[in-house]
Formats: sequence, C-alpha cells, structure tokens
Amino acid sequence: MTDRDHSLRLRPAGIDTYSHPVVYMHVDCHVCQAEGFRALTRVRIDCGENWVIATLNVVTNGNWLSPDAAALSDAAWDALQPEEGARGRFSHPDPPAAASVIRAKVYGERLTEAQLRTIMDDALARRLSDLDLAAFVAACAGDGLDVGETIGLTRAMQAAGETLDWGGRPVLDKHCVGGLPGNRTTPIVVAIVAAARHLIPKTSSRAITSPAGTADTMEVMTPVALDIPAMRRVVESEGGCVVWGGGLRLSPVDDVLIRIERPLDFDSEGQLVASVLSKKAAAGAKRVVIDIPVGPTAKVRSQAAAAALSARLEAVAAAVGLELTIQISDGSQPVGQGIGPALEAMDVLRVLRCAPDAPADLRDRALTLAWLLLDMSGGSDTGPNRARELLDSGAAERRFMAICEAQGGFTEPQSAPHRMPVTAPRDGMITAIDNRRIARVAKLAGAPQRPRAGVLLRGRSGDQVHRGEPLFEIHAETPGELAYAQDYATAQPTLFRIEEPT
Amino acid sequence: MTDRDHSLRLRPAGIDTYSHPVVYMHVDCHVCQAEGFRALTRVRIDCGENWVIATLNVVTNGNWLSPDAAALSDAAWDALQPEEGARGRFSHPDPPAAASVIRAKVYGERLTEAQLRTIMDDALARRLSDLDLAAFVAACAGDGLDVGETIGLTRAMQAAGETLDWGGRPVLDKHCVGGLPGNRTTPIVVAIVAAARHLIPKTSSRAITSPAGTADTMEVMTPVALDIPAMRRVVESEGGCVVWGGGLRLSPVDDVLIRIERPLDFDSEGQLVASVLSKKAAAGAKRVVIDIPVGPTAKVRSQAAAAALSARLEAVAAAVGLELTIQISDGSQPVGQGIGPALEAMDVLRVLRCAPDAPADLRDRALTLAWLLLDMSGGSDTGPNRARELLDSGAAERRFMAICEAQGGFTEPQSAPHRMPVTAPRDGMITAIDNRRIARVAKLAGAPQRPRAGVLLRGRSGDQVHRGEPLFEIHAETPGELAYAQDYATAQPTLFRIEEPT
Repeated sequence: MTDRDHSLRLRPAGIDTYSHPVVYMHVDCHVCQAEGFRALTRVRIDCGENWVIATLNVVTNGNWLSPDAAALSDAAWDALQPEEGARGRFSHPDPPAAASVIRAKVYGERLTEAQLRTIMDDALARRLSDLDLAAFVAACAGDGLDVGETIGLTRAMQAAGETLDWGGRPVLDKHCVGGLPGNRTTPIVVAIVAAARHLIPKTSSRAITSPAGTADTMEVMTPVALDIPAMRRVVESEGGCVVWGGGLRLSPVDDVLIRIERPLDFDSEGQLVASVLSKKAAAGAKRVVIDIPVGPTAKVRSQAAAAALSARLEAVAAAVGLELTIQISDGSQPVGQGIGPALEAMDVLRVLRCAPDAPADLRDRALTLAWLLLDMSGGSDTGPNRARELLDSGAAERRFMAICEAQGGFTEPQSAPHRMPVTAPRDGMITAIDNRRIARVAKLAGAPQRPRAGVLLRGRSGDQVHRGEPLFEIHAETPGELAYAQDYATAQPTLFRIEEPT
Repeated sequence: MTDRDHSLRLRPAGIDTYSHPVVYMHVDCHVCQAEGFRALTRVRIDCGENWVIATLNVVTNGNWLSPDAAALSDAAWDALQPEEGARGRFSHPDPPAAASVIRAKVYGERLTEAQLRTIMDDALARRLSDLDLAAFVAACAGDGLDVGETIGLTRAMQAAGETLDWGGRPVLDKHCVGGLPGNRTTPIVVAIVAAARHLIPKTSSRAITSPAGTADTMEVMTPVALDIPAMRRVVESEGGCVVWGGGLRLSPVDDVLIRIERPLDFDSEGQLVASVLSKKAAAGAKRVVIDIPVGPTAKVRSQAAAAALSARLEAVAAAVGLELTIQISDGSQPVGQGIGPALEAMDVLRVLRCAPDAPADLRDRALTLAWLLLDMSGGSDTGPNRARELLDSGAAERRFMAICEAQGGFTEPQSAPHRMPVTAPRDGMITAIDNRRIARVAKLAGAPQRPRAGVLLRGRSGDQVHRGEPLFEIHAETPGELAYAQDYATAQPTLFRIEEPT
C-alpha cells in the first residue's frame, strides 16, 4: 500500500449517532494524514456501488481502532452495507448541489420547485450536513416560505418518496396538527369510516417529542410495522388500516427534516403544511379532514394562527389536488383520560365498545371527524347520525377488531404495575391543565418507550375538587421512573390551575 | 445504586470531535433508560464545579464501554476535567437563554447589544448546539445584520474575552481581509513599524482553510504560542511581536463561530466586520490599517463589495473607538513566490534582507501598509520614504531578528525534500492565476500541517511562457503527497490561464 492508496478496511463502530453518519479514524491513519482530514471534516466513503458522506471523528487514544481501519457509526454502516472485510475508498466530497440553493434561500431568494427538489434529493441521500439543514430550516422559519414555495416544497417532498395508487377510488384520510395529549381519535375514525365501506388507508407516526403517537398506541393492540403489500391486503379486505408510516417511504425527507426542526423548535408554517399534505398525497388520499386544536398550550395557540394555517393548507391542497375540510377544535386541555400508549388504547377501546365510562370528549371528537369524512365521501351515507349509528351499533368496533386481526392479531392493553395518585393541593375549581407539562410527566414515567407508562387524568377543566382528591395518576413500569415523574409533577405548580371559590 | 441515581463513572473516550462535546453511553445504561436519553439528545453533565452540555452517542456494540460508565470526547473531557474515578451527574439541560434570542433573529427581529451578548456568552460556554449556531449564522448571512447590530456584535464579542491594556499608548495594528495566497506582509510590516519605535503587538491566526496563516509562517522561524505575560515582555522590549492569537482569549467566540461558518461558507458582512474589529479592540489597538485585496478569486470580488465593506468597517470602528485606514489592493493573483509556511517565510526573509531575488510585489505591499501605519502614528516620522529607509538600511531586519530572539529564538526555514515542476502546456501569456485552486494544490501537498510543503510560483500574470517552461513547483515532505497534489494540479486547466499570442 502506498501513500496514494486512500482506502481502509471498514468495520462497524457499534455507535448509534441517530441518522447522522459518522466515521472514526485513528489519528495516525495514513488516509487522514494524506488527505488532510481533521475532526469534523466531511468525508466521502465509497464501497462497491454505495457511498455516503460522513463526519470524521478522530480516535486519539484507546486500542479499539487500529490506524489501518475505519469504523462506521450505525447510520454510516447501513448506508454502505459493506461485506465482510470490505475496504472503503476515502475522498473529499464535492459540494452538494443543494448547498448553493440553500445559500440562495438564506440570502432571501424565492426557490422554485426544481430547486426545492434538489434540496430534498440531497437531504434524502444524506449529502447535506446538519449545518446545511439547520440553515435551510432557519431560512424557512415563520413566513420564510410563501404559498408558491410551499406548493413547490409539498410536491418536492412527495416526489422524493413513494406514492400509493388506489386505482382512482376516492380515498379518505385525516390528520391532526397535534399538541394535545390523549387526542387519539384516529383508530375510532378509521373504524367508523371503514365500517361505512369507504377506503381509509391510514398511516401514522410514532411519538417524536410526545408521550405517544398513533402508531405507538395502535402497536399496543396490533402490529403496525407493515410493508406496503401487507398494508394493501388489510385495506382491500377491511377498507381501512392504521399502520406506521415510517417504514413506507411516503415523503421520507420529512424524517430527515424533523431531526433538525425538533431541537431548534422553529415553527415554519410552510414546512408544517408541506409535511402534512405531502404525506397525504403520497398515501394516495383524495379527501382529507384536518383537525386543528387551538389553545394556549397546544401547537396552534390562537384563532388568528389557526386561520392563517387553514388558508395556507387550503391553497396548497387545491394546488396538489386534495379536497380538504378543516375542523378547528378546542385545544385547551388533554382529550380522554389516558396519556401514554396503553392508557390511550384503553380509552379508544372504551369508546369503540360504548362502555359507560368511555371518555365523552374523545367520543365526540371522533364522531365529528368521522361525520366530516362521511360528508366528503359524496355518497348518500352521510350526516352526523350515521357516524353515531355506526359506533353505537357495534359496527365500528367489529370493523376495528377485523382490522387488527388483518394487521396481525389483537392484544388487550394491560395496566402498569406501579401507580401513584397526585392530589389537589387545595379546594377549588380546575381552570386549566398545561398540555405540555402533563405530557412531560407521562414521558418521565416512561412513555412511549414503556407502553404501559403514562398519566391517567381524574379531573378536567371545570371540575370542582377538594384538597387531597386525585387530579391524576402516574403509571410506570418501574418504581424509579414512577418516583422520577412524581418528583417533576409535584414541582410544577401550574400543571393544574385550581382557583379557590370566591 | 437505585434507578434514581443519575450518575455514572466518567472516562475519556479518546475521540476528537473538535470543539463539539460528545458523551458516549451504553445502550443498556440505566441513566439513558431512566432519563429517556436517545442518540443525539443534548445532555447536561455536572462534575464537581464544572458542567458541560454534550451530544449523546449511544454505544450499541463492542466491549470498550460498560453500561455503568460514560465516555467523554476530548472536548467534553477538557470542559469537565474529572479527577481519577470521578462520577458525572446527568440531566436534561434547561434551554439556553440564547435559544429564544436566536429564534427572534431568525423571525426577523433586530437584536440589541444585550441580546447579542447573551448569544456570545452561551456560545462560549458551549451551551448552544451546532444547529442553534447554524441558525444564527444563517440569520446573519448577507445583510442580515445592520450597522447597529454589527456594532453590538463587535462589543459583545470583545466583552466575551480579555482586552489587553497598553496604558493608553497609541497602539498600531494591521489586518488583511484575506483570500490571497502568499500575501504574508505582516512580519515585514511589524518589523518596520517596530523599528520606527512604535508599538505593534500583533496577534495572528493559524490557517483554517488556507495553506498558511501568519502564525503558521512565523512558527517556522520562531515560537508563536506565547501567553499574555510573555507577549508583553517581547512587546515592551522590542515594540512589536507576531504571536498566535488563538491561545490568548481575545474575542474567543470567533473560534466558536468560525467552526460553523466555514463549512456553511455564508458571507456575512456584519460577522466579518465584528470578527475583525473585536479582535483589534481586544488586542488594545487604537489605529488600524485594513488591507482589502479585490479580485475575481479573492475573498472580496468587486469594487462595489469592497466599498460596502469599507463603509461598514468605518462606521463600526468609529463606534468602538478605533481609528481606521482602509487600503483596497489588487487581489487578482497570489503575492510573492511561496505558498505554504516555510516557502512564505523564505519570501519574508528575502524582503527583510533586501535580497536581489526578493519578490517585488510582497515588498511593495508591505512598504505601503507600513507607510500607512507610520502616517497614522501621528509623529513626524512619516512618509513613504521613511518605511523604505527602515527596510533598506537593515533596521527592519535587525528588529525582526530581535523580535524572534525575544519570542524564543530564530530558526532558518528549510526547503522540502520532494519537488516537482508543473509546466506550461503551450506558448502564450499568463492572463490569470486562480487563487483558490493554487491554494488547494499547496494544501494537498501538505500545507500547513507539513510546514515545508506548498507551491513555489515561477510565473506571474503578464509573463510570457513557452510550452514546457515551469509555471510553479510543488514542494512536499513525502512522495505520496507530492503525487497527490500533482494529480489535482494537472487536472485543473484553469489554474493558470495562458492565452496564445494573437
């Protein structure tokens, strides 16, 4: 091997850096020295047909990596898929085409659909660094994207992945803009709409920063990690499904952007709209109901913000061929009693089973959304009574169980072994519940990684409570997590606002 | 140990992630599980009085890290400085105050000096993630900062570090906006100005993306990593110095921002001005000459851009109490013959020694800048002839040798053992030399890490050359690097533009 052979044996580092590819090289490695690579250099690695751009971390000490090998983080290993003993060739990457497009946006230019597609393609192929992506996200924040750019971004995001084809049938779908713990209407809505013999192939996400996503909640009851052929079989036989969308490559750039957007926590109306509508379009939906809960601790905090978001959703939906109905709903407090995968699944099942203790707010919200969808379906089979009839007759429950069976079998959710009540510190009326803080309690208790963990609400806004009465219960799978969530909950005076009688 | 004890034994990972703190934890670590930490979570680690916010990488495989320990990257280890066997306490960090200020800027608000100071403080304490910093850099790109904000940023950057106090004396300084290979006027200018008995305590940087910084070139001849007391002793005895500024904490946030700005390659006029002037103010300078080379492959590419930059430099300098003279110079091609630390040092010495083969362009540029500085010094000791007299009489050379002796001793630069000429492919006149590509050849040959590596120019713009005559020589310390630089050089048809006689 001469100094000019810029290849090294590849081995897995066994280090999870999420989706960010990292390569580890020894400080004495001849490739580092010859190429002038230093820590954080972006390095192109070719192996057979595959290649990836990875960030270099330099191993300065320890005996786990020799100078004649390069170790790959899990994400880099997955991208290259080297065979046993394979060598990687190392070089300086050419700047990705998207870098100059991002620069143009940062400098205030409007982007075309073709330019946005360049960004999506390079982002998906992991040719962009986190810094490039953060700069793009910053440039899009707030009103950084106009309606025309939002349409272009929606199309570019859809084009970067698969699009499901349902043969021209009027496929229905729903989406909630989020931020409301326990608002798990999707399984109920899908059951009602599918029971009415409409097509509703629903893909849902797992939690990113919340205590449960719809996919997490469904997974307590039935498998959700179906591939596209399996999903199709469920939908063709039952009319509906609730599967995890993450593995289906529907608008897959969304996952790349979310990794950057979440920690920065910049709201971009354009990116939100493009994210939602590109996924609906990619799932083959034609008619979509969008629920926008509005409240001081919800994602959308004012009626004005909801109106602006609605206007943009409608403009973009029209441009990409989606029929839209928008429902602005009350986002002032959590929905149902349970927060966390299993606890939410229990709420869903009590509504589907028409149990006497079924949470009325969850039932009402699901019925409203189902009615709006039936209304859009254009048949004679519409009206608010029709949705209620399908639920109360048991037709929706039967359809839900059939969907679960088709997805791989139904499992009854179980309660957590460790529970502790949090009680009212004084007499009075509950006037507010902080959606964000109650979600944090559920997460500290272990949700969603521990499916039975979470929060069970005992009081709601408007309820009168006496000192010492339970406001909510913390559920956990281990005593340590129970105590940890309790420590946080008792240190939050504004979790439940209780006003004393005047 | 219970589940609630969120501490782990700390050990060094022996991994260099540049200045980005990373913590490695095992996938089965109880702290990860209890806190819900996942790959890329930002984690606060407390150890004694020290703390740091680090990015989590999860070790999924291998036996180098046990589940009851956490390994720290070099930067995280340096920040915490744990004693043998020390434990770190792990928690979710509070969002840094600067995050909401950066959000305000991203959404288009003007920032006050106090807000900019919050960003500088959090950046310096490494409380901001790379994503936060990238968003800030993107928001400042182009004209993202107005003059008022640039003044605030300059003051905030200066306030974040040390400021040298020279007892009210009229301290002189110079700066070049850069981008021109071989433009190593600083050692000559300092020697002339110090020989005229003025005070010029010069701090210089190492190369970041170029083949040599002034500190790299000086280090071939004399030690440059002096601390402030040692620098003071040199300046008090010799009137001047040329030391590496990186260790002196003068405007230290600049190093944090540069790590983000360089890969993104966004030009921000405001950040450039604040970076330059905060360092000058922190070094205690009162009167500063700024050289702005303008050329199609220089950093500043047009007279209009140079005029805008000059106007902002002057406005900010006036606000922070610096007297400024701006020199717009020719940036169409490299300066001198050598590119790379030792080759540039040889050019500097030939000028100081008034050697017959001293590069005239380097000499002329240094004399002009020295004259402008003498002119600003306000004494009677001015005029272009005075600078030339100090150089031609040998006074500047003697002063330079005395400065080197005071900094720790002088060493004569040596030539590289491996050299290869690159020749003209045809007869004609050289009409352009690409600054960026010729710099890249020098870097591929090993500069600045290998001090003797680089490029020695044989032809300049305007020269007539014949096919087969040398345009430049590549110098390298190893045969492999020589060949690697040659491969690149011969594949670049526009490195030297040669127009055939018409």
